[in-house]
Amino acid sequence: MMSGAENFKNCGSVLVTGANRGLGLKIVDTLASGGFPPGKIIATTRNPAGAQELKELAEKHSNIHIITLDVVSQESIQKAVEEVSQLVQDEGLNCLINNAGISVLANFYTVTAENMIENFRTNTVAPLMITKAFLPLLKQAASRGGADGSRSMGIHRAAVINVSSMLGSMELNGREMATKWSEGYPYRTSKGALNMVSRCMALDLEPYGILCMAIHPGWVRTDMGGPEAPLNLEESIPSTLSVIGGLTEKDHGSFLNFAGELMPW
Amino acid sequence: MMSGAENFKNCGSVLVTGANRGLGLKIVDTLASGGFPPGKIIATTRNPAGAQELKELAEKHSNIHIITLDVVSQESIQKAVEEVSQLVQDEGLNCLINNAGISVLANFYTVTAENMIENFRTNTVAPLMITKAFLPLLKQAASRGGADGSRSMGIHRAAVINVSSMLGSMELNGREMATKWSEGYPYRTSKGALNMVSRCMALDLEPYGILCMAIHPGWVRTDMGGPEAPLNLEESIPSTLSVIGGLTEKDHGSFLNFAGELMPW
Repeated sequence: MMSGAENFKNCGSVLVTGANRGLGLKIVDTLASGGFPPGKIIATTRNPAGAQELKELAEKHSNIHIITLDVVSQESIQKAVEEVSQLVQDEGLNCLINNAGISVLANFYTVTAENMIENFRTNTVAPLMITKAFLPLLKQAASRGGADGSRSMGIHRAAVINVSSMLGSMELNGREMATKWSEGYPYRTSKGALNMVSRCMALDLEPYGILCMAIHPGWVRTDMGGPEAPLNLEESIPSTLSVIGGLTEKDHGSFLNFAGELMPW
Repeated sequence: MMSGAENFKNCGSVLVTGANRGLGLKIVDTLASGGFPPGKIIATTRNPAGAQELKELAEKHSNIHIITLDVVSQESIQKAVEEVSQLVQDEGLNCLINNAGISVLANFYTVTAENMIENFRTNTVAPLMITKAFLPLLKQAASRGGADGSRSMGIHRAAVINVSSMLGSMELNGREMATKWSEGYPYRTSKGALNMVSRCMALDLEPYGILCMAIHPGWVRTDMGGPEAPLNLEESIPSTLSVIGGLTEKDHGSFLNFAGELMPW
């Protein structure tokens, strides 16, 4: 299950948004605690002061760097880019994991324009705006090639990982019990739209050698996933990171799950 | 090519949004001028005063009813529902064609949160809000069954048609020359998201016997489609209406093109 995770030792820097809890916190923990930590783990959160668990992790691991980032604020994004730039210097940013997300619950009868847009802004637009803002640092990393000077694609060079969801799959919508979820208008739409952003960005990032893909980390028992989810964090994140670590050209523009299987759009 | 269009004679009322120009105007024209006109053709536009061609059509065909509808205004939607309700009375609304849409041009470098949200609001959220608002009239039509009392699904009973686009297909994005279009971040995302709304609504409308699907009318030479589009209105709309006229249960929740072929998500 951990095949691929060892590739993170060739990854100079990873940035994870929404790292204060849930999947994001577990990604940071797993990367820092595993046998193959990347050089720098940049953990962003809207409010570092309130991110107790993350702060404790950073005290244990000197390669964790906490940076403030409110993903829906262009001003906050720009400030984070400046701070990350100081941190990574000429090496650029190797791996951007757009993990921060929210789930605004609304069914057909309760959904409003406002809650559709709120979820879209955070889950769809923010990853696009963040990727645009970090492009110079990603290009810098990609232009250096891998540690071995390799021009192949992957996290050893530069990659944008969009944390999507099975619930963003149109094909699966309504096909399985787990996806018959009536409260998901804003969330499903935002994740389907994120997959389109991911497809668009894959075309635009390819000339720079920057890999871009979307991943479904599984339905996990977090604050957002709820108590009925079938997976715990330990069943999701090491496997998800293994998939991310093993990404190559053939995965560019794809939508994979935490087991590395291709997901239908 | 016109097989299916004759089914519109069994359709008491059709509502078409964005009927002042382009695809919407041609839909109204074709429905009114064809051999099998529906009982009532309700053509909505944001500004009827400026819709010269639509007004001329309505002077020629007494079954065309022009109603004001600004699709992004909840107040305007409510007002339109009241007017349509007066018009269709106990018969309800048989076919709602969510055609109104805009294309906000922006590539990876020029796209902003604001233009992503502007396109999403009109192309994704508006069809959802309009369908919600017209639900009582659609249910009314569906509960009456077809002219023959049939409980099967289709425009003889009640249907919601979302005018989507090939450009909303993630699978096709970048796969074909026609889809290597860098300026389409807001538009592609909004249409992909509309397809998800369509999938979600199909699940919620099914218990009422209301069919819901998304259609790609082809890339057509309109103000929005531009001069390079391969199809003219005459090559798109009669065929699109034929597909809509022939929809049955098997098409519920689907994404079809103007030739009736299944589109990949």
